[in-house]
Amino acid sequence: MSDEKTVTAAVIIIGNEILSGRTQDTNLNYIAKYLGTKGVSVKAAWVIPDLHEVVVNTVNQARENFDYVLTTGGIGPTHDDITAECIAKAFDVELVVDDQIASRIRQRPAPEHVMESRLRMARVPKGASLIENSTGGPQGFSMENVHVMAGIPRVMQAMIGNIPFQGGPVVHSCSVTAYMGESEIADELTTLQKDHPAVDIGSYPFSRNNRYGTSLVIRGTDIEELNLVLNSICATITAKEETPEDIERP
Amino acid sequence: MSDEKTVTAAVIIIGNEILSGRTQDTNLNYIAKYLGTKGVSVKAAWVIPDLHEVVVNTVNQARENFDYVLTTGGIGPTHDDITAECIAKAFDVELVVDDQIASRIRQRPAPEHVMESRLRMARVPKGASLIENSTGGPQGFSMENVHVMAGIPRVMQAMIGNIPFQGGPVVHSCSVTAYMGESEIADELTTLQKDHPAVDIGSYPFSRNNRYGTSLVIRGTDIEELNLVLNSICATITAKEETPEDIERP
Repeated sequence: MSDEKTVTAAVIIIGNEILSGRTQDTNLNYIAKYLGTKGVSVKAAWVIPDLHEVVVNTVNQARENFDYVLTTGGIGPTHDDITAECIAKAFDVELVVDDQIASRIRQRPAPEHVMESRLRMARVPKGASLIENSTGGPQGFSMENVHVMAGIPRVMQAMIGNIPFQGGPVVHSCSVTAYMGESEIADELTTLQKDHPAVDIGSYPFSRNNRYGTSLVIRGTDIEELNLVLNSICATITAKEETPEDIERP
Repeated sequence: MSDEKTVTAAVIIIGNEILSGRTQDTNLNYIAKYLGTKGVSVKAAWVIPDLHEVVVNTVNQARENFDYVLTTGGIGPTHDDITAECIAKAFDVELVVDDQIASRIRQRPAPEHVMESRLRMARVPKGASLIENSTGGPQGFSMENVHVMAGIPRVMQAMIGNIPFQGGPVVHSCSVTAYMGESEIADELTTLQKDHPAVDIGSYPFSRNNRYGTSLVIRGTDIEELNLVLNSICATITAKEETPEDIERP
């Protein structure tokens, strides 16, 4: 499905709590769906620990290979919030205090050492532009094609809506469920995929209430072609004397 | 917290459906928790598309840098199931038909072309050992330190229990919640982390029912030290005239 017009993104999820299993990440899923509506395809995601060198290397690898890079996590006021300094290092620029953020933070009075910690959140890489966010949480920012967001889902969601994305054609999808094994239609799917290289046909087996089935998902930018492929798959299922279920048109 | 004794793992989640946002991954979370009980720490995770070159390169990068590599997804009978051939390529060995799997698959009769698709699941890299799995789903296998599992959570979970792991000391964790901003205790946490480099102190802000709070999680192998650090954090919270809540001992 990839072609020159595809606009790509990579997501970097920064946080030991995801890797330890303490927290179930939901940000990748939200970001993938959101970017899909903007014509941007997530092509890779990394989950990495709060380690300086790992963050710097991953960001540098990603920003060279994808149109957009989005990070979540590590922009709060505590010792384990190292994302801003890592982004500065990745771009080889200084970490500077942004006056606008600092004065917003100072508006809420606090004892000196608390204020000092809070002001950590005013540090951004030199040249960064700020991402607006209505929640008043930590400050997100952008450096070239890298967009740095909070890890708290609610705050991340408030931020991503304020990042301008220039996407390509929006990828649509459609699907149908067959209560049959994948292998029973594998052959036909292979042929169909070969005949329609511009769409991406995915086959996802599942078991639900002790019933095995296969979800067939077709993704592509041309709605007419999606309908054509979907109809072919439904016809294949019917020819096998099963019923196409849960049909979702593009 | 890393030291020479830490046994590490990387998880590779293979599947366009996760990157498109269609499916919310839960396998990473399960694997991270499970490996934790075996004394193996997940240190990185990748989510990658069903693309031959990407799978091969990611597997090769991971198997050199981590003690264990676990993959999920892409071992079914359809055209988008390319994991087995990618693992063979990564190890530069042939993809061969395993007689044991093939004869199991042939036990259930099917039309010729269905059988042909199903037999795709009998192909494993030469030299692979098989991972037993009570669900009768697709066949998982191991090549050296790389363990290849199904994407369906129920099947993956049946497989991982049959992989032998030689872990290091088990990492325990404990936690406490403070209904206060992270910045109010950031200073004390920084000092505490410096004084106890063998543990990993994480600070995770959250909002729940419109109440902001911070979860403090301490992870490490020495239960006595964990209790010590937990007590210090509770004392800090109390000194700030707040109440430590939801205390979980190691």
